Amino acid sequence: MEKSEAAAVEMGNTSRESKGKAPLLAAAVHHNRAAGGQKRGAAVFDLILRVCAVAAAMAATVTMATTEQTLPFFTQFFQFQASYDDLPTFTFFVIAMAVVTGYLILSVPFSIVCIARPAVIGARLLLIICDTLAVTLATAAGGASAAIVYLAHNGNSDANWLAICQQFNDFCQRASGAVVASFVAVVLLIFLVVISAVALRKH
Amino acid sequence: MEKSEAAAVEMGNTSRESKGKAPLLAAAVHHNRAAGGQKRGAAVFDLILRVCAVAAAMAATVTMATTEQTLPFFTQFFQFQASYDDLPTFTFFVIAMAVVTGYLILSVPFSIVCIARPAVIGARLLLIICDTLAVTLATAAGGASAAIVYLAHNGNSDANWLAICQQFNDFCQRASGAVVASFVAVVLLIFLVVISAVALRKH
Repeated sequence: MEKSEAAAVEMGNTSRESKGKAPLLAAAVHHNRAAGGQKRGAAVFDLILRVCAVAAAMAATVTMATTEQTLPFFTQFFQFQASYDDLPTFTFFVIAMAVVTGYLILSVPFSIVCIARPAVIGARLLLIICDTLAVTLATAAGGASAAIVYLAHNGNSDANWLAICQQFNDFCQRASGAVVASFVAVVLLIFLVVISAVALRKH
Repeated sequence: MEKSEAAAVEMGNTSRESKGKAPLLAAAVHHNRAAGGQKRGAAVFDLILRVCAVAAAMAATVTMATTEQTLPFFTQFFQFQASYDDLPTFTFFVIAMAVVTGYLILSVPFSIVCIARPAVIGARLLLIICDTLAVTLATAAGGASAAIVYLAHNGNSDANWLAICQQFNDFCQRASGAVVASFVAVVLLIFLVVISAVALRKH
């Protein structure tokens, strides 16, 4: 656009007319670019955070799903072994975080749409609603697993539940790491919701 | 403005001019009122849901905080008693849900501001960000307590944790009720976030 206009100016107009017009045009283009650039900046930041959240959620899922430990001693009848699916809460954690990871990967194209066309409000609204649901799911999984990991570390004398982390130390370490990764994903998702809310306000 | 303009019309203008002007003015006022009414409807719905969420969160807090059970038999040395503060997770639940209840009560005036002045975007933006944090806190409390309640009901043979609900049946019932109430509050809070997002989009 600018180029062809500049060419037209060169071709026939008086130099005074072109001088009067150019700054106004330039100012309008500049203003549009500043507003679009601001929205685009938020959208780019959204995409970066989203990719980080994918990494955190995937790390949480994979860490928990591969957690198992076999103790080096065994009796005649059975071997002492701990795996994530011994505890239903950890199974829920793996499923929920896998769903969140899948959603986050699928949401990347929508985030790219928000970069390419900052004026499209539908994609932004869809992202903020689904992000809120993802926050809830990830937090429920993280919170439930945190409660069980705490119990495994400390036990509870009132309910007569003994700590199992003395025996299954490696198992507990990995489960704790997965819980921490899930909370990192939760914090990133909260920032994503806030960015979307601020970006919606600008429209 | 309308009144003074009408007075000016009465004072000196021709009747045709006033006839031409009145429908246009009326249409503009009507359009403004319809848009304002839509926003106001969303804000009223927000207030109703918020009051329901206060009720649910308060019910969860009070139910869990008053949960205790003393078994009718006792030995020479001690009495069998269960209370919410025997389990750290339930203590966290009470504190977190009390914070959420307090926040929701404090947020009611902001919701009323959104009804009175639908054009104020700041209050709406503050509500959506704080609601997201409240969702996270309530979900973490509900999820963690759900994991412990599940364990109390079913036990876990792999970790050698026994179910305690056969003995403390009343205790478990009340704790389960509190967890259900907290999830009702979570669902209402999610709707609040969605309503705020849609209302922000309209600006």
